[in-house]
Amino acid sequence: MKRVRIVLAGYGNVGYRFAEIMKDKYKAVSQNYGLELQLVAVIGRRYAVYEDRGISLDKLLDCGKHGKGLAGYGEGAYPIESSLDILKNIRAHVLVEATPTNIETGEPGYSHMRQAFRSGMDVVALSKGALVCHYREIMEEMQKHHRRIKVSGATAAALPTIDMGQYNLAGNDIYRIQGIFNGTTNYILTRMHKEGIPYHAALKEAQEKGIAEADPRLDVGGFDTASKLLILVNSLMNTAYTLKDIEIQGIEKIDGKDIMEARQKDRTIKLVGEAFRTEDGIKMQVRPMELENSNLLSKADYKDKAVVFYTDLMGTISVIGGGSDPKAAAAAAFKDIINLYK
Amino acid sequence: MKRVRIVLAGYGNVGYRFAEIMKDKYKAVSQNYGLELQLVAVIGRRYAVYEDRGISLDKLLDCGKHGKGLAGYGEGAYPIESSLDILKNIRAHVLVEATPTNIETGEPGYSHMRQAFRSGMDVVALSKGALVCHYREIMEEMQKHHRRIKVSGATAAALPTIDMGQYNLAGNDIYRIQGIFNGTTNYILTRMHKEGIPYHAALKEAQEKGIAEADPRLDVGGFDTASKLLILVNSLMNTAYTLKDIEIQGIEKIDGKDIMEARQKDRTIKLVGEAFRTEDGIKMQVRPMELENSNLLSKADYKDKAVVFYTDLMGTISVIGGGSDPKAAAAAAFKDIINLYK
Repeated sequence: MKRVRIVLAGYGNVGYRFAEIMKDKYKAVSQNYGLELQLVAVIGRRYAVYEDRGISLDKLLDCGKHGKGLAGYGEGAYPIESSLDILKNIRAHVLVEATPTNIETGEPGYSHMRQAFRSGMDVVALSKGALVCHYREIMEEMQKHHRRIKVSGATAAALPTIDMGQYNLAGNDIYRIQGIFNGTTNYILTRMHKEGIPYHAALKEAQEKGIAEADPRLDVGGFDTASKLLILVNSLMNTAYTLKDIEIQGIEKIDGKDIMEARQKDRTIKLVGEAFRTEDGIKMQVRPMELENSNLLSKADYKDKAVVFYTDLMGTISVIGGGSDPKAAAAAAFKDIINLYK
Repeated sequence: MKRVRIVLAGYGNVGYRFAEIMKDKYKAVSQNYGLELQLVAVIGRRYAVYEDRGISLDKLLDCGKHGKGLAGYGEGAYPIESSLDILKNIRAHVLVEATPTNIETGEPGYSHMRQAFRSGMDVVALSKGALVCHYREIMEEMQKHHRRIKVSGATAAALPTIDMGQYNLAGNDIYRIQGIFNGTTNYILTRMHKEGIPYHAALKEAQEKGIAEADPRLDVGGFDTASKLLILVNSLMNTAYTLKDIEIQGIEKIDGKDIMEARQKDRTIKLVGEAFRTEDGIKMQVRPMELENSNLLSKADYKDKAVVFYTDLMGTISVIGGGSDPKAAAAAAFKDIINLYK
């Protein structure tokens, strides 16, 4: 049995689900993979919990369930002066970075990841900001300390994207990737297509259902899609592009007339993130595209995501689905941990 | 740089493509994965080629291209007395088993695999027979010698099935798998659906195009689908079922009336291999199913394959496509080698 000591940074929806999965799957993971997963610290916004001999998941989940915050954990909970101090002083194998994504600064994820590498930890990323803003620096810091990173949870989560490219398609030249990486915009476009409701009504509905944020610009403006595309391309192609290298167009200008015209041609409008090889390097763009019915991306509806890989040896492979909720995102990080240490 | 010494058993279409990929990807694999892949022996039906310092891929491919057979390799080619003697005496890391599949006896793959394990090699399987007939014995022999096996090429090849379950969905409980695992029957059913041609005409066309065998019973009778389902389930669920545990029904009895009725209901008939958990263990069946349009398996047409995983944490994930030709099958074995040694 191999023990894996885990630090979780961020205890929002996804962090809570991650702790829940750790509890539910404790036995299965030890039986199936010979791994004993042990949570030794949780870093929240104002409080942290750490216990060198392992945090009680029952007590932790209880804090989450009743909105008590981490302070409610009792003995073992401390007000945070510096989250970096915790990462400096704790012995652990891996940091699960699940703080809120900020694609302007990359913080606090960026500082957390760097400190984790310096403290000898691997990193499993759920937050996208640091990877979007500082990909090259993160890779350099990681290599310097001979550590590893996994980012499934930051690139469409339960939909396998990076794993597909790195593992299932190993040895192939992937010359084009197309994907629907954002569930919110796909939900809005699907509602517009299937029910003929206008953009603003579909957006409002998505907000009321908790699918879209109160400030939906990151989603409908295409920036979330672009962020995921960026991380995917940098991971698979061994590049260090930034958001500036992507042409980004959102769905705000799609109206009923566009939808109607697409339908008449038996096509579907989807917000597609795309990367392909050209003579001048890799071209990346995010834009609403009219897809033919033969493109399987057109079959991903509502909150579903999808990705299509075009390869030299194995032809075209499409992956569609995977939950689009905090549990599925947490499960992506959980999978990364298993694959790192099994 | 890590050198990987490879023995290839079977030099038919797939074996030839495997050697071709080894040549084309030599540089890319050393650059991207730090692996130097070296072919040290090829075992054909009557001749074998072995060269301790590495076979010339150019000379080998030349034998294949001009139908000269391995004898045409010249110095380094020997008439075979016993293929097992070669596996006994050669130093190599991995056997790529690409001899013809025989699901009655599992030979010659079974003897090859056992001897490979005993000689300290890992196994990458393209042939299905041994895995179908002797799964438990193969696993036991492998464990006894602390070796590993990868079988992507024996379970729908370029369509990632086992990798998906073992890697991309690690930590999930997969409670149902549905798949279209056989390109030949899918081609026939697609032609019947889309063009309304009768079963026997579609089968004849598939035979003329080289998609179906002269004796098509393994495909149209559902046995090829069942074999792949069996290997997939045994690999993912850690079981040791045999073909007898699968209810198998082929497509021979599907006629124009069935197709018409399905179309009227906006459904599609596909030959589906399915496994799901019940209170009495895992139930497995292969049969023609009328699929609703919402089931993405219905979108796999002609020679395409597809698989749907139903999971507890990550929802439903569908994978569709992947080449259905000898090159794609060989690429699946090539991928397995990279993932074993990278």
